Amino acid sequence: MEKKFKEIVTAVRPVEKGLEDEARVRLDSLTKPLGSLGELENLAASIYCVQEHFPLAVDPARVIVAVGDHGVTEEGVSPYPSEVTRQMVGNFLSGGAAVNVLSKAAGAQLQVVDVGIAGDRLPEDGGLLDRRVRSGTANMAKGPAMTREECIQALMVGVELAESAKNDGVRTVILGEMGIGNTTAAAALYCAFHELVPTEAAGPGAGLNARGVSRKALVLERTMAANRGALESADPIAKLAAVGGLEIACLAGVAIGAAQAGLLVLVDGYIATAAFASALAICPAVDGYCVVGHVSAEPGHVRVLKRLGRDGLLKLGMRLGEGVGAILALPLLRSAAVIFNDMATFESAGVSRSAR
Amino acid sequence: MEKKFKEIVTAVRPVEKGLEDEARVRLDSLTKPLGSLGELENLAASIYCVQEHFPLAVDPARVIVAVGDHGVTEEGVSPYPSEVTRQMVGNFLSGGAAVNVLSKAAGAQLQVVDVGIAGDRLPEDGGLLDRRVRSGTANMAKGPAMTREECIQALMVGVELAESAKNDGVRTVILGEMGIGNTTAAAALYCAFHELVPTEAAGPGAGLNARGVSRKALVLERTMAANRGALESADPIAKLAAVGGLEIACLAGVAIGAAQAGLLVLVDGYIATAAFASALAICPAVDGYCVVGHVSAEPGHVRVLKRLGRDGLLKLGMRLGEGVGAILALPLLRSAAVIFNDMATFESAGVSRSAR
Repeated sequence: MEKKFKEIVTAVRPVEKGLEDEARVRLDSLTKPLGSLGELENLAASIYCVQEHFPLAVDPARVIVAVGDHGVTEEGVSPYPSEVTRQMVGNFLSGGAAVNVLSKAAGAQLQVVDVGIAGDRLPEDGGLLDRRVRSGTANMAKGPAMTREECIQALMVGVELAESAKNDGVRTVILGEMGIGNTTAAAALYCAFHELVPTEAAGPGAGLNARGVSRKALVLERTMAANRGALESADPIAKLAAVGGLEIACLAGVAIGAAQAGLLVLVDGYIATAAFASALAICPAVDGYCVVGHVSAEPGHVRVLKRLGRDGLLKLGMRLGEGVGAILALPLLRSAAVIFNDMATFESAGVSRSAR
Repeated sequence: MEKKFKEIVTAVRPVEKGLEDEARVRLDSLTKPLGSLGELENLAASIYCVQEHFPLAVDPARVIVAVGDHGVTEEGVSPYPSEVTRQMVGNFLSGGAAVNVLSKAAGAQLQVVDVGIAGDRLPEDGGLLDRRVRSGTANMAKGPAMTREECIQALMVGVELAESAKNDGVRTVILGEMGIGNTTAAAALYCAFHELVPTEAAGPGAGLNARGVSRKALVLERTMAANRGALESADPIAKLAAVGGLEIACLAGVAIGAAQAGLLVLVDGYIATAAFASALAICPAVDGYCVVGHVSAEPGHVRVLKRLGRDGLLKLGMRLGEGVGAILALPLLRSAAVIFNDMATFESAGVSRSAR
């Protein structure tokens, strides 16, 4: 399976940055002061570099919520018990979670995937996709979260989800996740990939108090120590296997598979960005396909985005996960597409240009 | 007419701030970590304070683009000639402007209103609403932009637009504008209402270079001097008449009329916020009905928002006007409404609460 995965990684082409100039020429011809649509213009140019032709198309968009549990929760890193992962999946399937109401309001499809929930398998007839690789990760504070094979299997689940999105005509995939304990895994990945120190990477997550955050930082220290070999290697898959999560590896695979398929990737907050960072470490060419939807309230997120040379479109103090921040940014992608596609030019509308 | 306007101002009730606690109780019962939806939760609480009942409703939403010309353009305060106002109205009516494609994408109605375009009247059969008060303002650098009667007439145009929005079932009005030269009028209003000095208030607008911005600040100095009597009075209508614009007065009237009618008001950038600031000065009770959609790239905007104790929802470096930044924020209002209306509670979904 590793061979097949590596072939896909190799097949990802970086976006054609040269197309950005073409996009700017068109944007500058539209009836608005030069550059006056700010980030929307940058977005339109980015989408054009991915799609390479006119008109730009953002829809259909699909939210992929990958779900997995984390052995490290036994260290007390979350204010919620691990069972809440499974309970929230029930909530996703009955339509009551934030991701349900927001994806519906945004007109995006929703796919919920079990990549690694702990405990008994859940029935697929409720709408859950069963792609479980293992029943939760091992406790990374004591050793690797998963084996290399499991990690690659989770990555390949993601690749296949991206491929089937492509086959269903989807143009944008949105990275969402659920997994009690996964801000700790994300923090560990940032320590691994971006040399954040545990106290920079640890934050309140779903609502830890200051004492809880300190404990989380200590657990991260122990995690780094317990996985020193993998973390000192130059191999991003080894790092992801050691301190990642099944849902995070899956989303990294979605990003890679989406890039290979020429889809836009809309990245959510702290945890989805860890998947994006993992994907970048494995396959730097995914970069141009990805847009970060929002900046999370989790303090480490802004630090990591800076290291990635990125900014999120929205800054709304959100820290929920489930892909929710990225879903809120979807209308901005659509807006960027319609200005590019449908606005009149100065010439066509008979409007005078600036005298500047 | 002033008597009628004053009656409306007096009839505006402040929103019931006590309802915010009720809203927070509901928000805290929903299946998400406490406060994890950040600004979306604040928005939901604000909407509940306006609408006072469940479920919250944001739609239908209507963008009102008020259009007027500015005599002060003869001082060279814009890189675009004054005729562009009229040309852009043609563009609005044929569907090619940013406001057209973005309001369509956002599912909002669009109403374009001539409150004070210079030159011949435009035919109404193209979809333009003719409520012209006068053909452009006078040059405020030499004296008052309009008479008190004209100002009140423009305010009443806005009140009536809000009333007809209410009668059409609209729940949210979005303040948009077009008028070459109107960043200068907005800047003058901020000097008048918020004691900004001209060099703080003057910015590049539609694209002035540094020399142009300096000239604009000097024009603002002369404007302040030429209207000293009105600006030193305690009468906000006198100030608005002296250094405002017909489209700005109209939008101030929309905000007041909307508040009186219990509608939400979504405020756009630098110029629409000057209308909001004018409305606040005339009728402080409008405050709770208004949400600022975005923070403009025009440097004075962030300063003014700070003085108003406000922040904009989006920060995308935009500076186009036409209501465009506020239109982009409309999906956030809808998102706030659906989380409040439709998410499951911990109890209904059988999800465990935080152990914190």
